[in-house]
Amino acid sequence: MDWKPDFSSETPLYIQIKEVIKNKIALGEWVVGTKIPSQRALAEHFNVNRSTVVSALSDLMAEGLLEGNTKGGTKVVNNTWNLLAASPPPDWSSYVQSGNHYPNQPAIQHINRAEFQEGIIRLGTGELSPDLLPSAQMKKIFDKFSANSFTLGYEEPKGNRYLREQVVEYLRGLGIQSSPSNILIVSGALQGLQLISMGLLQRGSSILLEKPSYLYSVHVFQSNAIKLIGLPLDAEGIQTNQISRYMKGYNASLLYTIPSFHNPTGCMMSESRRQELMKVCADEGLPIIEDDVYRELWFDEPPPLPLKARDPNALVLYLGSLSKSLSPGLRIGWVVAPEAVIDRLADIKMQFDYGSSSISQWAAAEWIGSGLYQEHAAHIRDHLKRRRDLTLQLLETHFLGIATWSVPSGGFYIWIRFTVDVPMQMLFDHALKAGILLNPGSIYDRSAGNFLRISYAYAKPNELERGLSKLADLVKEISKPSV
Amino acid sequence: MDWKPDFSSETPLYIQIKEVIKNKIALGEWVVGTKIPSQRALAEHFNVNRSTVVSALSDLMAEGLLEGNTKGGTKVVNNTWNLLAASPPPDWSSYVQSGNHYPNQPAIQHINRAEFQEGIIRLGTGELSPDLLPSAQMKKIFDKFSANSFTLGYEEPKGNRYLREQVVEYLRGLGIQSSPSNILIVSGALQGLQLISMGLLQRGSSILLEKPSYLYSVHVFQSNAIKLIGLPLDAEGIQTNQISRYMKGYNASLLYTIPSFHNPTGCMMSESRRQELMKVCADEGLPIIEDDVYRELWFDEPPPLPLKARDPNALVLYLGSLSKSLSPGLRIGWVVAPEAVIDRLADIKMQFDYGSSSISQWAAAEWIGSGLYQEHAAHIRDHLKRRRDLTLQLLETHFLGIATWSVPSGGFYIWIRFTVDVPMQMLFDHALKAGILLNPGSIYDRSAGNFLRISYAYAKPNELERGLSKLADLVKEISKPSV
Ligand SMILES: Cc1ncc(COP(=O)(O)O)c(C=O)c1O
Ligand SMILES: Cc1ncc(COP(=O)(O)O)c(C=O)c1O
Repeated sequence: MDWKPDFSSETPLYIQIKEVIKNKIALGEWVVGTKIPSQRALAEHFNVNRSTVVSALSDLMAEGLLEGNTKGGTKVVNNTWNLLAASPPPDWSSYVQSGNHYPNQPAIQHINRAEFQEGIIRLGTGELSPDLLPSAQMKKIFDKFSANSFTLGYEEPKGNRYLREQVVEYLRGLGIQSSPSNILIVSGALQGLQLISMGLLQRGSSILLEKPSYLYSVHVFQSNAIKLIGLPLDAEGIQTNQISRYMKGYNASLLYTIPSFHNPTGCMMSESRRQELMKVCADEGLPIIEDDVYRELWFDEPPPLPLKARDPNALVLYLGSLSKSLSPGLRIGWVVAPEAVIDRLADIKMQFDYGSSSISQWAAAEWIGSGLYQEHAAHIRDHLKRRRDLTLQLLETHFLGIATWSVPSGGFYIWIRFTVDVPMQMLFDHALKAGILLNPGSIYDRSAGNFLRISYAYAKPNELERGLSKLADLVKEISKPSV
Repeated sequence: MDWKPDFSSETPLYIQIKEVIKNKIALGEWVVGTKIPSQRALAEHFNVNRSTVVSALSDLMAEGLLEGNTKGGTKVVNNTWNLLAASPPPDWSSYVQSGNHYPNQPAIQHINRAEFQEGIIRLGTGELSPDLLPSAQMKKIFDKFSANSFTLGYEEPKGNRYLREQVVEYLRGLGIQSSPSNILIVSGALQGLQLISMGLLQRGSSILLEKPSYLYSVHVFQSNAIKLIGLPLDAEGIQTNQISRYMKGYNASLLYTIPSFHNPTGCMMSESRRQELMKVCADEGLPIIEDDVYRELWFDEPPPLPLKARDPNALVLYLGSLSKSLSPGLRIGWVVAPEAVIDRLADIKMQFDYGSSSISQWAAAEWIGSGLYQEHAAHIRDHLKRRRDLTLQLLETHFLGIATWSVPSGGFYIWIRFTVDVPMQMLFDHALKAGILLNPGSIYDRSAGNFLRISYAYAKPNELERGLSKLADLVKEISKPSV
């Protein structure tokens, strides 16, 4: 609810509030059965005395729209129209609880909502800061837009041909040989994962992955009744010695990995680990999803070649995206895979959304084809490196003795482990009250309750300063020394 | 394969072909196990003698890349790299056949591919003709684009706020009361259906719908193990007298309808049928999905009020889209529903693709907010009406005595029933050979084998003339008089 009472109006506050609530009910926003916020919450939200809210609610109860219960809760029991209507409305809450797809984790839902609160400092957000997004260059791209630039119609199932050609060229620069027919344009890498989940895997199957992992934070696979089996990471990446055993034990049909600038740990898989991984998977015939969305964001030297660049056996499904290095709002990514796999995924994509926005596809092709994307990536690397350095320095200043962390060589993230005992939910709540939004480690691994994912990509330098210093204070306040 | 041999080159044709195939294998486009096209098909495709193809294939067999079998089929058995590699590649074809999501119907896959053949006349395509798409105005919209126009970042879960406000205003004009919090922006109405299927319904449940219906042509619900239960249509729309019985018999949890300019029949649900439908569904507490994507495309008078405009009980989930009246390439549509439902769908959308393209959302808001969309819709109505009239006239000329049809008062489609016995698959194949692409009725209802969906929206007037006249000839050629 964005509405606030008009304190200068002649209409009494309680009438204003009454009308607003009535409206929500009449518009079907609050359907019959909805439990409305508590009197206290409403009073706080509207910035009025609780007695004002009580007057408004009493009136609405008298009119037969609301009903209180003995526990102090208040529910919508009727709406203005169906005081006349014959039958009760459908029980939407039971529908909302049906559906195969899992809801987001409560923590993520909370974060998704809090992100749009004004003035909040987002210390965990996996997204480039708005001032790093290339609005001015995007304007230039659109100046090139001519009436004949692109179709406004539906695109080919695999995506705009010209864009796919640009992606082929771009991938060649990463050592990956491909052609337009084994590329599928997707609305971000996340959609690529959805398509793989719906298109290639059976209910009851399982996939191996690093633990922690970004993949635990969404329900792409779990919602299709596919299990996630976590393998430990070390400083060089996912440990390979257990893969065969796990694969057989869990009858795994895929391995998902983020080899470059892993989310959330920032880990970079070493050259020798990449070779080992390819060898083990080739020996086992175990296909790999290589999620490479952070690749461009290196600081001192580019990451080792992608797994896909050393893939004679066509083991690897490769995912790329413009979200992390250019603009997430474009919603453009790509899947590279054998043609039969791409055909299958393209067919499902046609049934999902008939393809990605043709304007976004056109803009993406211009960015990549003109070389502006590569220029921009270099610029982002520069800025991110400075932010990383600042963040490391702030951690040294404020967190020495209460936490440890590793130094990422690229990407967005620092994975912090508290060495004191911090009740994480309480830290999250206290931080949010203080205007700081956190990404707790448990989102990425249920057993990582003592970890935090810090991102230096989103918050501005002065926000990082204020936020991290305040956070350290909070930690010290609420933690007990670890045993 | 787009490649064609270079007939002016000094390199022999068979060598050129050999290299192209080798490349496809080396790039992993044709993985080991792929059955390659027949010699005849390759010869036709490359426009060379069969013996040229035989030479190329023999060489590749000698090199150990291909293997023929006794039935004349040829398979990829090796690739250039894994002549060195130790293990066989994963069996991708088994992956492609797994996955919960149904593939598109073979007929649709065929159509999806054939649509991009050059010079083909598309008599069934449910899409505005390219010359009706507003490229020049889109250019003007983008000239307004300033560096501060919009975020290039991820959007709010329910979609860009400004766009939702514009949609609220627009819906008010259709008699629908809503607010930004009960609107979800989706990447086209089809995605709205996907979200409903994944978010609100249980496996094993069922939904009622018109038969035939667009919904039979995609697998949005079936892929989640939800059954479609068809109800008959008459001239006024879906028949309501059976709804209660069917609902109970099949334990249906939703009813899906396209009340205005139904796809594929063109039928318009009358005012009195709308009232009846709302009454029956209110009595039964049966929620409705109202798919209203063709609403703007009326010829003589606007359709009756949407069901959603007479929905005191919050029964209706309403779907709208810019695809049919502005630009499908934008991929922008909306769902209007009670807030609890929208919250659930928005949460799943975040897990699908993190929201729709922010550029598309911005452009959509500009179109609607500036009033240009309404102007454009009026222009489209004009053109479509003329195309409908032409098409009806052509049908009178060529199909009298072999088919019957109804006269649509808006939308894209004429639903033709042949009164002679036409082997439809044969008609489809013959027509395709003659450069005409058809949408057989069976796509929308397995038992509608004697029907065709004709669209006057896509083909140009001279294509309609040539196409329909040729089609009538083909029908007369291959049909036997009906018994
Ligand atoms: C590892 C990883 N993969 C995929 C994604 C999804 O990115 P997008 O869908 O925006 O391309 C993210 C975003 O957070 C990510 O961290
Ligand atoms: C009845 C109906 N609903 C929904 C759609 C999907 O349209 P879009 O996803 O482009 O909005 C179509 C397109 O053919 C349709 O005919």
